[in-house]
Amino acid sequence: MNKNLLLAPGPTPVPPEALLRMAQPMIHHRTPQFSQTLAETAAMLQELYQTTQPVLMIAGSGTAGMESVVANLIGAGDKALVVRGGKFGERWGEIVEAHGGIAVNLDVEWGQAVDPKAVAARLDEDPDIACVFVQACETSTATEHPIEALAAVVRERDNVLLCVDGITGVGCFPLPMDEWGIDALVCGSQKALQLPPGLATVALSERAWKRAETVQRTGTYYLDLLKERKAQAEQRTTAWTAPVSLIHGLNEVLKRTLDEGLAQTYARQECLARATRAGLEAIGLRLYSSAPSRSVTAAWVPEGVDGAKLVKYLRDEMGVTLAGGQAKLKGKIIRIGHMGYVGPFDIISGLSAVEIALDRLGHDVEFGRGPAAAIAIVREQWPSAA
Amino acid sequence: MNKNLLLAPGPTPVPPEALLRMAQPMIHHRTPQFSQTLAETAAMLQELYQTTQPVLMIAGSGTAGMESVVANLIGAGDKALVVRGGKFGERWGEIVEAHGGIAVNLDVEWGQAVDPKAVAARLDEDPDIACVFVQACETSTATEHPIEALAAVVRERDNVLLCVDGITGVGCFPLPMDEWGIDALVCGSQKALQLPPGLATVALSERAWKRAETVQRTGTYYLDLLKERKAQAEQRTTAWTAPVSLIHGLNEVLKRTLDEGLAQTYARQECLARATRAGLEAIGLRLYSSAPSRSVTAAWVPEGVDGAKLVKYLRDEMGVTLAGGQAKLKGKIIRIGHMGYVGPFDIISGLSAVEIALDRLGHDVEFGRGPAAAIAIVREQWPSAA
Repeated sequence: MNKNLLLAPGPTPVPPEALLRMAQPMIHHRTPQFSQTLAETAAMLQELYQTTQPVLMIAGSGTAGMESVVANLIGAGDKALVVRGGKFGERWGEIVEAHGGIAVNLDVEWGQAVDPKAVAARLDEDPDIACVFVQACETSTATEHPIEALAAVVRERDNVLLCVDGITGVGCFPLPMDEWGIDALVCGSQKALQLPPGLATVALSERAWKRAETVQRTGTYYLDLLKERKAQAEQRTTAWTAPVSLIHGLNEVLKRTLDEGLAQTYARQECLARATRAGLEAIGLRLYSSAPSRSVTAAWVPEGVDGAKLVKYLRDEMGVTLAGGQAKLKGKIIRIGHMGYVGPFDIISGLSAVEIALDRLGHDVEFGRGPAAAIAIVREQWPSAA
Repeated sequence: MNKNLLLAPGPTPVPPEALLRMAQPMIHHRTPQFSQTLAETAAMLQELYQTTQPVLMIAGSGTAGMESVVANLIGAGDKALVVRGGKFGERWGEIVEAHGGIAVNLDVEWGQAVDPKAVAARLDEDPDIACVFVQACETSTATEHPIEALAAVVRERDNVLLCVDGITGVGCFPLPMDEWGIDALVCGSQKALQLPPGLATVALSERAWKRAETVQRTGTYYLDLLKERKAQAEQRTTAWTAPVSLIHGLNEVLKRTLDEGLAQTYARQECLARATRAGLEAIGLRLYSSAPSRSVTAAWVPEGVDGAKLVKYLRDEMGVTLAGGQAKLKGKIIRIGHMGYVGPFDIISGLSAVEIALDRLGHDVEFGRGPAAAIAIVREQWPSAA
């Protein structure tokens, strides 16, 4: 009889309005009716991405979105600098290699942000590098990389592109694509976009499109962005059968987001991040990242507590879904997502649940410290009426 | 105020039970709860495919499913025989070439089924051919290719695999994978599976898996079936973030389908196909295909009628969505889908709508002939109570 609470770094809760919109009867994807929704959604995505370039929608997970960038920008033998500070940085490298590219790895300690100077140095050392691949937020470590500074470094060089996995970034914190000079920006539906998984969105800069037109592609058909740009930006349709329901859901969610306004959304998300950090620290948990993200927060589980057991207890006994650590962090950290359709009381509830679960697992807890710390921060979201 | 009727060859109507199931609150994909649904759904897919091999679920359109087969079975320089009798046959060839394969085209007149003897002759001529690519139903021409006979021809040869696009086949008519010896079978969610677009399903035979393990793949990451098999068949999870909602919907739809029983489903679908053909012919429309499909029916529009206008009138004025012709058949044929969640009265309604639209476009119509012919056939679905 638990009331379920989803506080994972994706999938995130879906607003009832979007669930109901997606539950409407199916319509055909090659109709003026659907074209209008597609075009309207594409225009709102441009506002979200802050770009004049088309933002393309692809049926697939975020990984498909990442691969679409590599497949269209990296040919066999092309060199790419890959910022590897977690599981998703590693994924960029794997995709580059799957497409015959050469991944030059810039390893960053997990939980730390990459130093833009280190990227600049690598680019100076190796003028053959064509693209830099990085995460806006490395979800596995809940760490933000400094995209604005990286873009400044990359844009000093004529022949290098900055490709950003913004899957847990876009819609969570500012990533103004054109203003900063990001060359490729990927997002996935199940994060700040508040939808079920299954839709990726991708935009390329003018420079990146030029490269895409000439690169020697390997094994690319479904993820052909040139074909998708022609279909979506010129013909108001998709190259392949569109994920009709998800695009209807996206239309709904983007209206809500743009109605609130991006600045307000980002401020609200940042406030939730600060509240989550303060709450976890007040419970006595140490933050994992030295550059904590505004979309997801990771903390070490206290000594003597098995992190896997903690996550399992929260989920199976209490109905509260957080994430544990991945790869080498398995059982060592917990991660709380606070993107999209998550409000202050969800965070307070999540912190309360962590206190209860720690207590039930035999850890000494002073109840209420986590919620108290969070309350002191989220109260900013309401004006004083005194 | 039209009540909409979707009779396209995909997407097809989604049952309200599946819409509501997909509208349930989101759950996380890396949980025992989701693993159970995934495993249960995978087992039902095996029943649908009639195979002991795993049937893998991939977030993406049917084209992604087709590409996953090519990407895992065709390496650079590998030869493939492609049966080209329509737009989707051409697509197999394009995908083979995108992956560096050599497409040997066996061109078949549009609207005709391929002759298995012609396939045998080509395989004899060229012993280097590794795979034969064909459609169970070539949706663009509403034509069935003889898969059982093709499988018999291919299985006489040790080193050739039969890869079947069953996107408008699986769930519509029998394609017993193991019994016939199909080596790769693809389906998409928006056809007989009665779901929104965005999910592909793929199974390989034991022979095909062996080939997948050794082939020199080009540019393949997201669609790596070996990785997906390991995740889905061994670890009850997906390699990438699963399209949670669509898999919940699939679970619902497969339960309904298997409850009805495959034999009964196929009989019902065939009855609808016969009723559609008879109805269109009674209206005076000539069938396009000489091997008409059990999932979709195509007919020439009458002389003097603009097919594009007819489809548009039905859709925009009457709320009835059929499909027109693609590529060189644009404006020349109409296609009516009768897969999945489509009942006899939907067909009768569709035929009535065609009569009305033809009349409204100035064509001479004797009202009721189409419905009458369909009624005389679909009445078989109910036992006599006289």
